[in-house]
Amino acid sequence: MQYSIGIDIGGTNSVMGIVDKMGNILFEAELNTKDYEFLEDFVEASYKVLYPQINKFGFNEFRGIGIGAPNGNYYQGTIEFAPNLRWKGVLPLAKLFNERFNLETTVTNDANAAAIGEMMHGAAKGMSDFIMVTLGTGVGSGFVANGKMIYGHDGFAGELGHTIAVRDGRICGCGRNGCLETYTSATGIVRTANEFLETKNTTSSLRNLAVISSKDIYDAAVNGDFLALEIFEFTGKILGQSLADAIAITSPEAIILFGGLAQAGKFIFEPTRKYMEQNLLKIYQGKVKLLPSELKESDAAILGAASLIWNTEKILL
Amino acid sequence: MQYSIGIDIGGTNSVMGIVDKMGNILFEAELNTKDYEFLEDFVEASYKVLYPQINKFGFNEFRGIGIGAPNGNYYQGTIEFAPNLRWKGVLPLAKLFNERFNLETTVTNDANAAAIGEMMHGAAKGMSDFIMVTLGTGVGSGFVANGKMIYGHDGFAGELGHTIAVRDGRICGCGRNGCLETYTSATGIVRTANEFLETKNTTSSLRNLAVISSKDIYDAAVNGDFLALEIFEFTGKILGQSLADAIAITSPEAIILFGGLAQAGKFIFEPTRKYMEQNLLKIYQGKVKLLPSELKESDAAILGAASLIWNTEKILL
Repeated sequence: MQYSIGIDIGGTNSVMGIVDKMGNILFEAELNTKDYEFLEDFVEASYKVLYPQINKFGFNEFRGIGIGAPNGNYYQGTIEFAPNLRWKGVLPLAKLFNERFNLETTVTNDANAAAIGEMMHGAAKGMSDFIMVTLGTGVGSGFVANGKMIYGHDGFAGELGHTIAVRDGRICGCGRNGCLETYTSATGIVRTANEFLETKNTTSSLRNLAVISSKDIYDAAVNGDFLALEIFEFTGKILGQSLADAIAITSPEAIILFGGLAQAGKFIFEPTRKYMEQNLLKIYQGKVKLLPSELKESDAAILGAASLIWNTEKILL
Repeated sequence: MQYSIGIDIGGTNSVMGIVDKMGNILFEAELNTKDYEFLEDFVEASYKVLYPQINKFGFNEFRGIGIGAPNGNYYQGTIEFAPNLRWKGVLPLAKLFNERFNLETTVTNDANAAAIGEMMHGAAKGMSDFIMVTLGTGVGSGFVANGKMIYGHDGFAGELGHTIAVRDGRICGCGRNGCLETYTSATGIVRTANEFLETKNTTSSLRNLAVISSKDIYDAAVNGDFLALEIFEFTGKILGQSLADAIAITSPEAIILFGGLAQAGKFIFEPTRKYMEQNLLKIYQGKVKLLPSELKESDAAILGAASLIWNTEKILL
């Protein structure tokens, strides 16, 4: 058994592929998640896309299916109340895939899948203790300690994006205030930009734009725009402070940043590293690496999900 | 091999004892830590106290020595820069005990030792995912996930007491500001009392005291003193908020409170539970038990340290 299937379910697009043990993606496909009213329809569409390929590579060579999904629960194999999906409530994701494909299926959330992918094929190779932080539309995280993913007693561990970065701060989609993700996600940095444009007098090319994206802020920073640099400084400060607290809990060898905002390179890494170090308890200072993901953004979702199959003790039905 | 030795090194007193696998303490002794200028002298004194007993029970029946010590490092077997000990720098604690006693010796910090004791003999029996929080002179913690203590890559994980509860808050002994331990330790609650006495007009029996201890605040609360109740409410709020963030990281089955302040019972548990729940992300609400330690305060230190020997994969020399 040398292949596994990795599926990453996103609010808009879902990607899926066939992956070998070395992390090579041998086949890849995409579905528009929003096209499917019911989860069952999505499972059927996935089957239609993947089954010819599974037959081609040989069914008996497949170890199983790994799925990264928003609010995916490792223990239950379910998606539970995922706010960005059409499919509501608690849904037996692993069970449906297992029944249709006759392959063991494991589910976790997207950030945990990315962490496992990074541990098998990326920047965390050989590490037993690290934290994966995904800076995308939201902020996700996966904590690995003693060489194992921390799923927690209920399968929902690792929500660093919903720890409180600023007490009584910005309103979050989760209904609370000041969550890390309201500051350091792609949407969070845009909120910061809009706030700074209102409250600061710094001249900025961003003032010419009707609507600002995180990419616009990056482009402005590349051109030396002072306000854009201030925005990154502020974002890195909030992120660095929160990472310092996370380090005090699991004392990882490294923190790996992944996702859109992580691609801003030094603009996000430099302030984040600076404030992380400034806020660390002395015993942790200068010890924890802050690294970019080594997985290609386009491959990571599939690779991470597929890796679940090779790095799991519980296989769910 | 049915016995182990548990040693708890404290800034003022150190306790040590012989423990069987069931957690019965068969012999117990105490040394005044401050009496010993050098760690070597302390090791020798421990040997003089324990060796006759080891011989009595039979040397071959002993599995090893477990030591809980401030800033104790599990991987290195060292104490490193412990601010409350006379012995400065990085000291080879496990090595010295191992050489003198000819017994395998394992070291960790006091809160981790307490967590292991609780897992073997107390409120965390049978749990794979829990957090131990010790509310003493300082605030310590031990995180267990997947049935294993999280030591982190360097052996220093689990410093919840030094996560930032209030940004730019009270000055901490560690040199930073706003650490949880400046609010929810025995000394922290006294700082709160002194602050409230200055800034609030509430009448209180505490106003009659020249110096206030945490016990005084408890006694006043028992008598219905409004200010004392406000002090506990405030302390529980800070603690509950920090616990909610910790839950978002490891999603434990339970959080166990141990130490002097935990003995204030409902006065600390009720506000802590209330604010913890209020601050939890929806998926965690109503799921995480907040429990008092089931270890006797006097036994816990020795039991926890001794348990290290039965719950460890790495034995250090």
